[in-house]
Amino acid sequence: MRAYIVGVGKTRFGPTSKSIAELAQEATLEALSDAGLGPDDLDALIVSNFLGGPNQRQLHLNSVVAGIFPGLHLPGWRVEAACASGGVAIHNGVLSLAKYRTVLVLGLERMSDVVGNELTRNIGMAGDAMLDQVEGLNFPASYALVTQAHMAAYGTTTRDLDLVSLKNHRNANLNPKAHFYLKHVDQRDIDAGPSVAHPLRLFDCCPVSDGASALLIASEPRGGRSIEILASAVSTDVISLSQRSTLTSFAAAKDAASRAYLEAGIRPSDVDLAEVHDCFTIAEIVAMEDLGLAKPGEAVALLRAGETALGGRMPVNPSGGLKAGGHAIGATGVSQAYEITTQLRGEAGARQVHSARIGLTHNIGGVGGTCAIHVLGVPR
Amino acid sequence: MRAYIVGVGKTRFGPTSKSIAELAQEATLEALSDAGLGPDDLDALIVSNFLGGPNQRQLHLNSVVAGIFPGLHLPGWRVEAACASGGVAIHNGVLSLAKYRTVLVLGLERMSDVVGNELTRNIGMAGDAMLDQVEGLNFPASYALVTQAHMAAYGTTTRDLDLVSLKNHRNANLNPKAHFYLKHVDQRDIDAGPSVAHPLRLFDCCPVSDGASALLIASEPRGGRSIEILASAVSTDVISLSQRSTLTSFAAAKDAASRAYLEAGIRPSDVDLAEVHDCFTIAEIVAMEDLGLAKPGEAVALLRAGETALGGRMPVNPSGGLKAGGHAIGATGVSQAYEITTQLRGEAGARQVHSARIGLTHNIGGVGGTCAIHVLGVPR
Repeated sequence: MRAYIVGVGKTRFGPTSKSIAELAQEATLEALSDAGLGPDDLDALIVSNFLGGPNQRQLHLNSVVAGIFPGLHLPGWRVEAACASGGVAIHNGVLSLAKYRTVLVLGLERMSDVVGNELTRNIGMAGDAMLDQVEGLNFPASYALVTQAHMAAYGTTTRDLDLVSLKNHRNANLNPKAHFYLKHVDQRDIDAGPSVAHPLRLFDCCPVSDGASALLIASEPRGGRSIEILASAVSTDVISLSQRSTLTSFAAAKDAASRAYLEAGIRPSDVDLAEVHDCFTIAEIVAMEDLGLAKPGEAVALLRAGETALGGRMPVNPSGGLKAGGHAIGATGVSQAYEITTQLRGEAGARQVHSARIGLTHNIGGVGGTCAIHVLGVPR
Repeated sequence: MRAYIVGVGKTRFGPTSKSIAELAQEATLEALSDAGLGPDDLDALIVSNFLGGPNQRQLHLNSVVAGIFPGLHLPGWRVEAACASGGVAIHNGVLSLAKYRTVLVLGLERMSDVVGNELTRNIGMAGDAMLDQVEGLNFPASYALVTQAHMAAYGTTTRDLDLVSLKNHRNANLNPKAHFYLKHVDQRDIDAGPSVAHPLRLFDCCPVSDGASALLIASEPRGGRSIEILASAVSTDVISLSQRSTLTSFAAAKDAASRAYLEAGIRPSDVDLAEVHDCFTIAEIVAMEDLGLAKPGEAVALLRAGETALGGRMPVNPSGGLKAGGHAIGATGVSQAYEITTQLRGEAGARQVHSARIGLTHNIGGVGGTCAIHVLGVPR
C-alpha cells in the first residue's frame, strides 16, 4: 500500500495565547491550502496529543477538532505514545489508508498553561510512575544517566554535547517557525548556563513549546509536490529504566530502524538528511547511532567534522530539532515530517539541504519506550 | 479486507486493588489462552485508555504494557476518544490488519484511585472544557437535558427509564464478570434512589468501574470459534452541546450506524442482539433509535413489551450494559465486543441469546461527540 504526504501545515512553535482549537485550525487550514483541498475532501481525522488532560483538562480532542468542521462527521480519534505521539499518529494515518483516501494527521500541544513542578510532574507521565518517577528519575535525570553511560562507554564529552546545541541553534535561526528563531546562542551562552542534571546543563535541554502541525496523507500523489512515505515503523520497549540492559542505546529505536530500512528497501547510507528526537543533546548522538547513521560511539566524530551541519554530508535536524526548533510534544513527530517534506520539495528557504531525495524522521517517547521512524522520499 | 476476532479476555469489572499493568496482564493472557496463541504470535499492540494521566499520573501505556512482554518490541500506541476509546481501538485494530496479522486490542481503566469532585472533574474532560464544563454541565446534567428533551418530544417517562435499569440489572445478575453480578435490584430500590440530576436518579446512572478487556484481531479466522467483524465504523460530532441542533438523537451515532450497515450489507432488522452505550438509562433508548432498531420515540414500546429483554425478539445489553455490567471507561467498547463474541459463539451460559448470528456494538464518547459501531457475525 503506497502513501503520500500531499499537504503540510504548521504553526510557529513557542509560547502563544492561542487555544488548542485555534492552533488546530491554523495548522489544518494551512495544510488544506497547501494541498489545494477543502474540508470536504477529508475522510478521517487523527489527532496526536500528549498532555491535554493534565494540562488543559480537555481530552476527547477529535471531538474538539470536529468543531472546526461542523457537519462533516469525520471518523476520528486521538493517539498517544508520550513524546512519540506524533510519529505513531503518522503510522496510524498510513494504516488508515486501508479504508480512507485522504486523512488529516494533526499534532497538537499547549505546554504553557502549566509551569514549574506541576509541569515536570505532568511530563513525567511519559515515564514509569511506579518505579522511576517516584524515585526522582524525571526526564532530565534519566537523560543525565544516558549521558553518563555514553561518556563512560565512548569518551563522549560535554564539548560534544555543545556541538549539538550550537548546530541546532544555528539551524533554528534559519527557520521562521522555530521556537528559538533569531535567538543567537554561542559557546559563552552555553558555558554560562546552569546545571540541570549533571552533566546536562540548560543548553542541553529542549524547551517546552505550544504548537500544532498537520499532514494530509493520501493513497495517491496529488500534483508535483507530493512526497512518498517509503516506510512507517513503530516499536515499543519496557518503560522503566530499571528493566533495561543498556542506557547507551534504545532497543525500540534500533528495532524500528531495522523495520523501516527493510520496508523502504534502503540502507542507512542512503539517507540524505534526518530529523531526530533531540529532547536533550545526548539524544541526538544516541539517535544517530541507533539509526545506523554512525557506529556506536562514532556519532561525535561526524559532529566534530561538521558532517551533520547544513552543508555537511548528511544534515541532522535542519529545522533546529527539538532543541532549538521547539518541542510541542504531541505536534513534534508530525512537525518532523513537515520539515522533511519541505526539504524534499526544495521549499526550505535559507535552511535548504541541496539535492536531498531521501529523508528520515526519528521520534522517541519516554526514555526510548516508544520509537516511530518514517522514511520519506521524492517519488521516482 | 476481512477481520476476525480470534480470542477474547476480560477481567471482572468493578473496584479492585489490581494495578493497570496487572489488569492488562490478566485480560491479555486470557485472550491469548482463548485463541491458543502465545505472546510471540502478536504483531502489534493497541491500548485503549481514557484517564490514565489524570487518575494514575501514567500515560504512555503501550510502553507500560510492553513490560508484560519484555523483548518483543511490538509496534504499539494508545488511542483515546473519551468513553468511545475502546470502540475506536477496535477500529484501529481492523485498520492495522493492513500491515499486521494478529493485533492485540487492550482496553484498560482504573477509576477507583480518584473519588468525589476530583473524579467528576476528570470524567468531565470528555466534554467541552470551555463552554459546557465551566457552566456546570457535567455528564449527569448533560444526560438530564437529553432526558428532558426526549420526554418533551416523545412522552418518555421515568417508568420507561426504570425498565432499562431493571432489565440490565437482571442481565448482570447472570454475568459473573459484571460489576453488579448477584446484586438484586427491584422497583423499590429504584424508587428509593436519590436524585442525581433531575429527572435522572441513582439507578439511571452507570457505576464507574476498574477493569480490562482484550481482543485478538486477525486477518484470518483461527479454529471454529472465530467471529467475523462485518463492519467497523466511527464518526465524530462537535463536542459542545451548545453547538447541537437536537438533544434527542446523536448525529455521530446515526452517521456511524449508516456507515456500518452499508459496510456489513445488512439492515437494522437483521441485528439479533446489541450491546449499546447505556451510561445513563436514557442513552439506551436514544441508542436504539439512532441505530434504527426503533423509530424515533418508539424504543420505549419495545422496552415495555419486553422485546429487548433476554428471551425477547432482540435482546439489548445482555451483559448488563454499562448500567449494571459496569463502565471501566477505556475497556468498555472492547468489553462490548467481548460480550457479542461470547454470545455469537454460544458461550454466554445463563445469559445466552439463542440462535443469534449477527450482533452489534454501539460505543459513545462524551455526549455523542464520538460513536464507534461494530457489526459482528458468525462466519458463513
